[in-house]
Amino acid sequence: MSEPTGVDGVSPDATRADESAVAEHSLSRRGFVRMLGWGGAGATVALGGRAAVDAIAEQSAPSPEELARAAAFAFETATIESGHQPGIATPQQAHASFIAFDLDASLTASRIKALLQILTDDSARLMTGTAPIADQEPEMAGDPAGLTVTMGYGPGLVDRVNPAAKPSWLKPLPGYKIDKLEDRWSGGDFLLQICADDPITLAHARRVLLKDARAFTTVRWVQDGFLGARGARVTGTTMRNLFGQLDGTVNPRTSEDLGQVVWIGSDSGESAWLHGGSSLVIRRISMDLERWDEVDRPGREASIGRRLDSGAPLTGTNEHDAPDFEARTPQGFHVIGPAAHIRRARGDGAERILRRPYNYDTALSGAAGSGAQVNDSGLIFAAYQANPEKQFAPMQARLAEADLLNTWTTPIGSAVFAIPGLGELGEIPGKALFE
Amino acid sequence: MSEPTGVDGVSPDATRADESAVAEHSLSRRGFVRMLGWGGAGATVALGGRAAVDAIAEQSAPSPEELARAAAFAFETATIESGHQPGIATPQQAHASFIAFDLDASLTASRIKALLQILTDDSARLMTGTAPIADQEPEMAGDPAGLTVTMGYGPGLVDRVNPAAKPSWLKPLPGYKIDKLEDRWSGGDFLLQICADDPITLAHARRVLLKDARAFTTVRWVQDGFLGARGARVTGTTMRNLFGQLDGTVNPRTSEDLGQVVWIGSDSGESAWLHGGSSLVIRRISMDLERWDEVDRPGREASIGRRLDSGAPLTGTNEHDAPDFEARTPQGFHVIGPAAHIRRARGDGAERILRRPYNYDTALSGAAGSGAQVNDSGLIFAAYQANPEKQFAPMQARLAEADLLNTWTTPIGSAVFAIPGLGELGEIPGKALFE
Repeated sequence: MSEPTGVDGVSPDATRADESAVAEHSLSRRGFVRMLGWGGAGATVALGGRAAVDAIAEQSAPSPEELARAAAFAFETATIESGHQPGIATPQQAHASFIAFDLDASLTASRIKALLQILTDDSARLMTGTAPIADQEPEMAGDPAGLTVTMGYGPGLVDRVNPAAKPSWLKPLPGYKIDKLEDRWSGGDFLLQICADDPITLAHARRVLLKDARAFTTVRWVQDGFLGARGARVTGTTMRNLFGQLDGTVNPRTSEDLGQVVWIGSDSGESAWLHGGSSLVIRRISMDLERWDEVDRPGREASIGRRLDSGAPLTGTNEHDAPDFEARTPQGFHVIGPAAHIRRARGDGAERILRRPYNYDTALSGAAGSGAQVNDSGLIFAAYQANPEKQFAPMQARLAEADLLNTWTTPIGSAVFAIPGLGELGEIPGKALFE
Repeated sequence: MSEPTGVDGVSPDATRADESAVAEHSLSRRGFVRMLGWGGAGATVALGGRAAVDAIAEQSAPSPEELARAAAFAFETATIESGHQPGIATPQQAHASFIAFDLDASLTASRIKALLQILTDDSARLMTGTAPIADQEPEMAGDPAGLTVTMGYGPGLVDRVNPAAKPSWLKPLPGYKIDKLEDRWSGGDFLLQICADDPITLAHARRVLLKDARAFTTVRWVQDGFLGARGARVTGTTMRNLFGQLDGTVNPRTSEDLGQVVWIGSDSGESAWLHGGSSLVIRRISMDLERWDEVDRPGREASIGRRLDSGAPLTGTNEHDAPDFEARTPQGFHVIGPAAHIRRARGDGAERILRRPYNYDTALSGAAGSGAQVNDSGLIFAAYQANPEKQFAPMQARLAEADLLNTWTTPIGSAVFAIPGLGELGEIPGKALFE
């Protein structure tokens, strides 16, 4: 039986973020044929470009229902790119849970390794749509829905396992004057970033992994976040955050960019366990929607330096137009002001990061009165970069110094994790750390 | 310019629950043309059944990307069926927020009406993808994503507005011995049920409506829930709850069923404001996943009376096979035991309800140790029926009396609301209550 070719041409990823060079969810060919149910023996189902249309017309009766079935994404598995953990270059899934653990004081290096091996095994199974051995609801594992599990090692873990191999940047960020950090959202010895396009898949995977870890750890914090639903919007739509801003316009996109910005290279001078890895900074940023409501549109647009409707820089017309930081008004003022967020974030352009943030939003019970705060809302700001001291910290320092958005945003949590490289699926990330 | 015909044939609803007679999301034709971007002047875009395929082949170059764009559902609006509020017969959206309010003590009937008019106006706009007048983030209103806002009136509201028109069943359910009800999940004068297929849409709509209400009310409780993501699974897939059970196999499906089970008829003897309406019982049911884990598969299947994999009754082979409650084992025991959930829920079949439940799941920080509870999980059990005393209560009494599932489930919240009928979109639901 011939396998279908060119399946990528109708990948449901056509409706994902426009990070073209970033690894795409792969539509399993076997799964595709299974779900589609019409590429029978001998048939070649060519589904790319014009060929797709012809093939559809030539096939016997694929109904709209069959096409819809083919687009169901619960059975999709994320692409695992050799050398790197998934969940970093992977296009952002709609739902995420970030969980930080403290390791039990008694845990030796060898038992930490055993814990990581269990989590690795179960994660590999879950990501490939296979039930872990001890899974009590194996039917729920059959819908990976693009699931990725990404592991981060905090300072406490590396100190216990192999302190000599600890990168110099693996420590809390310096304090910034804008910070109002709370312990309950900060730090941690170990991190799981679990992402999927389906909230039921995410709930199941999270439970399996939490049960694996509970004999060895205490859950330090949990942060759950969301983006727009998978498939809701067209290709290339940048998501809006809860301020209504398009969020994520500037991100490294090409493989070359990712190599420069995100991945720790073998020539980096870092220990071998980090090669192919990265670092993850997670900042919980509370957004004061009540006071943001008091700001008019010109004020909002000036604070970010972009238009609210299109996301275009104030000096441009389209979202991806390069901002003109030199442009001035007839009165001689900068069009993109000195404290506009995009100017402060960019600096001289030397520091870049991969933003992979999620929104959080909780309606508050007990709220009463016309001035009451009705939501606890904000951004789980997750940033990947090869070196947080050289890339994230200078940018954050500039923003802390002056950024109009600081008026309505407050960092209330902060954590830094090393993201080890990955040999192959099923190996402990950063295996060399344990050797 | 011709409008496209037969758009329903490729409605993204082909991937929704199989409630065929239940109102479907309508794919706005104007929106469809706008998003598709290829049914230009004079073109007839016929997209139903075989015609769809032919039309695709005849059109000039609709690429797979264009087809994917056409399937984006953010711009879809829910069908508003005359006489009934949306969000009841509407196929369940992926995300829901249930919010109960207490009305300020000083609020007169006329001010309650004013509050409801504001909420009605803004809901109507949001459901049709239009920004409310005072919406500070109007761009976020442009993606209704199947949004529905359903209003429920609690005993407190009706008592204050028109006590003579209060139905006899509008009061708390009788207590059941299984209940461990908490005030923080129970009661309320007024309810908003907000549902959408996109969590950003939901967050925005919720904020707009909470701001409308806050000058007049106190938020009593908020319950957020989820199902599987829109489009993740194929048509007719019943969702799994967090016990891994297929949940919702038995539900009224036809218009006739809905008329018998859900809608309050004009010949019901109820007040006019309820005609076309219903009642909503919301029970927050905590599910003890830790103790459920201790039960083997035969035990789990016996407790529900269905197989875990297919959802088929223990006497059948397919999910929708009718259970044979008379069937016995060779030893003479009932195959579906006397305390199996489906037997107890069904009784003699006289009482039926429309289940519209959502899962809730929170990973718990602070969890440590091998026996620790790692999730706070359960079901927001939402049931619509014409008369809760005659339909829901006897069923609940039977289940409270004996249901193996009670071993692992505990009702911790309970509320009953009258769901008024709706004249037309933009009118206050149950307008006659105020006359």
